[in-house]
Amino acid sequence: MKIGSIGYNHVHDMKYENFIMDRPKGPGAVLLLLIKTPAVFKVGGVQYQVKENSFILMSPDTPCYYTAQENVYTDDWVYFENDDWDKEYVEKLGIPMDIPVYLGDMDELSHLVHILVYEHYSGAVNSEEIEKKYIDVLFLMLSRTLKSRNCMSSKQLSERHYRFTQIRTMIFTMPDHVGNVDDLAAQAGMSRSGFQHLYKKLFGTTVIKDIIEGRTKRAKRLLSSTRLTIKEISTRCGYTNEYSFMRQFKEQVGKTPTEYRSSI
Amino acid sequence: MKIGSIGYNHVHDMKYENFIMDRPKGPGAVLLLLIKTPAVFKVGGVQYQVKENSFILMSPDTPCYYTAQENVYTDDWVYFENDDWDKEYVEKLGIPMDIPVYLGDMDELSHLVHILVYEHYSGAVNSEEIEKKYIDVLFLMLSRTLKSRNCMSSKQLSERHYRFTQIRTMIFTMPDHVGNVDDLAAQAGMSRSGFQHLYKKLFGTTVIKDIIEGRTKRAKRLLSSTRLTIKEISTRCGYTNEYSFMRQFKEQVGKTPTEYRSSI
Repeated sequence: MKIGSIGYNHVHDMKYENFIMDRPKGPGAVLLLLIKTPAVFKVGGVQYQVKENSFILMSPDTPCYYTAQENVYTDDWVYFENDDWDKEYVEKLGIPMDIPVYLGDMDELSHLVHILVYEHYSGAVNSEEIEKKYIDVLFLMLSRTLKSRNCMSSKQLSERHYRFTQIRTMIFTMPDHVGNVDDLAAQAGMSRSGFQHLYKKLFGTTVIKDIIEGRTKRAKRLLSSTRLTIKEISTRCGYTNEYSFMRQFKEQVGKTPTEYRSSI
Repeated sequence: MKIGSIGYNHVHDMKYENFIMDRPKGPGAVLLLLIKTPAVFKVGGVQYQVKENSFILMSPDTPCYYTAQENVYTDDWVYFENDDWDKEYVEKLGIPMDIPVYLGDMDELSHLVHILVYEHYSGAVNSEEIEKKYIDVLFLMLSRTLKSRNCMSSKQLSERHYRFTQIRTMIFTMPDHVGNVDDLAAQAGMSRSGFQHLYKKLFGTTVIKDIIEGRTKRAKRLLSSTRLTIKEISTRCGYTNEYSFMRQFKEQVGKTPTEYRSSI
């Protein structure tokens, strides 16, 4: 999909400007708005009181009218080129057209619009291709926000998801910094059982399995690409002694570390 | 392309850890490193003193060895899945393999790795697809950085490019806030002729042409989708009177504003 024109964080102060967009024939191109202040929308004959942090994706020919609800109207806006509009893609992502939808948090989306403004007007190397990728990301993120809004409604849970992802990242990238499950639960500020339950819910696998996988992956990499001793590798993978490393590796891979190394 | 594993800003302090990556058989998978501290690399038998803010993209089976040059070694690292590695794409972008390259500024690239870490381990809605788009952006940006490094060598020029892009964005998205060329040159802190020359060089078109295009585009949009009067539209498009708007619109579009409006 391609951008026709795009603007980030345009502020209309009703004190200085009687901002009313009245478009009886529709916006003329597909138009995405990230609405940052309370607004009144009339779309296809239906009137909406729209909360801040809402979005609307409008069809080119749906009559629409919008203005501020209070003193200021602020939005990000993106017009797409009609020829390049991929209707099916957006439908498949579950993004509705011509209805304002409250999102709650739009920071990430708005940040993407900010990046896109630069890509669109900079004429920098590769900017057309980068623009396309970022548009796809914008719609994928919009779809994610809509879906997460339904299954986990509070912002608190999404912050918890962020914290859990940090823990999971550590499990896979710094297995030697990962203690046992009780330590991880303490890092998340939760009980052991609560932690294990939510981990499973968020990632579809258990924390124990991830710990073992993180250690085994790193061990394989170090065995195949370095000359480190088995003892050194066991430390770098978070084992307190090489024998438990050797036992667990054999269980997972079907070979001892030494057999694995010489088989490559 | 797909990520095997990924880590952001891993710090190895030589006081606590004798960090040496010695991989006589190569890293085993394509490996991208964003190197943030001075380092020593031996790749395919050749030794390099690598400056901070360099990158290297290594083939799976090129023997390599790397360690800190000073007290600390820090990098971002991305292993790619061998099956999904798109060699042609990366070649076409002009990104060399198995040679460390100094980039100067890696903030944007490193920020992308940071985002990718979250996408890779979060298991969030659409994360696999978003990861793929961001990997493409990472390589497109890397290619851009390499190319801009050659044609405009100083960081100063890239800051100027950023400022010029802001001005160009205003020309297209807020034509009513744009004065004449002298005003824009003053905003850029340059003489009129210096401003016009660099504008042409950066964007391949003149500032005057862009101003007229920005105004005409907005005028067309407002004529076709709103009921605003010609006088109101001329103001919103940055004209000081409606007659110069009418004259210029006719020159550009071949119809008067009123004719254009009734023809849609």
